[in-house]
Amino acid sequence: MGTLTGSTDGPAVNEDGDLATPFLRCLIRLIRAQDAHGAWEGKSDTDLLADFILTKEQRRKIPIIGDPDPYVLWRLQNFYSCVGLVIEECTGLLASPIMTIGHEGFGRLLFTTGRLVVLSKTLRDVHRFGFETLGKLAETGTKMVDDAIEVIETYPDVARAS
Amino acid sequence: MGTLTGSTDGPAVNEDGDLATPFLRCLIRLIRAQDAHGAWEGKSDTDLLADFILTKEQRRKIPIIGDPDPYVLWRLQNFYSCVGLVIEECTGLLASPIMTIGHEGFGRLLFTTGRLVVLSKTLRDVHRFGFETLGKLAETGTKMVDDAIEVIETYPDVARAS
Repeated sequence: MGTLTGSTDGPAVNEDGDLATPFLRCLIRLIRAQDAHGAWEGKSDTDLLADFILTKEQRRKIPIIGDPDPYVLWRLQNFYSCVGLVIEECTGLLASPIMTIGHEGFGRLLFTTGRLVVLSKTLRDVHRFGFETLGKLAETGTKMVDDAIEVIETYPDVARAS
Repeated sequence: MGTLTGSTDGPAVNEDGDLATPFLRCLIRLIRAQDAHGAWEGKSDTDLLADFILTKEQRRKIPIIGDPDPYVLWRLQNFYSCVGLVIEECTGLLASPIMTIGHEGFGRLLFTTGRLVVLSKTLRDVHRFGFETLGKLAETGTKMVDDAIEVIETYPDVARAS
């Protein structure tokens, strides 16, 4: 807890030890797993997650309508892959994502296990994807995982049906 | 039945009155609904469906690996939209499709109603999408609809869950 208090070089204040949440731990592992050439070895976990942070001021500077760039899509993919991975860690069931993103960053996202839709989201404003703080990032991801687990617990047989 | 027997200008032989199946009737309506400028008014139903037919000889001439062109994607979209529409006609439940197609025509397709996955398909060879005969087209579509209805009947409450 609080190991990052006093850090000043990241855009996100992280006084609550959010990095210790299972969701952010998983996200960091997921990102580091893609570091094929060791380019990020010298980066701290907070640095790696800094791109996910979009303060109110930063958000205001981005046009309301825009096409998502490859970097924001990469972050979006990682965020939702992480949701799927944590669902699997918690339930032992593989949650397959399927995502469509059309023009101007509108889209749809589903996670399914067996015959069950465990998570369904309409995506908007994908080009402005980001979270105000690391805490918000952890909270949003964790909430999605919790919701999905609740659905699985409500329909356990459908979640295992082929 | 057999109204089209003797037609020689279409690529598909249609001696079984397949056009009378609910699936093909719906597909024709769906295609005609997109004829904003009346360009296809003079075309018969068989002509409109002719593009969905790919004989073994035609298929052999298409490279095994290839990227789907917009025309084949349009047909694919219409075919699966039709599956969704007929499911709705039969069950009163809206079946939402979600489809991803990546490079070289591999992809995934899901239909969901409520919390239920009523149809899940891996797409392959999308650039060679087509059916040998109108009969096969009708049969494949009808089979998908029937399978989806069976799943809905197995889990009626999940199909209506929000």
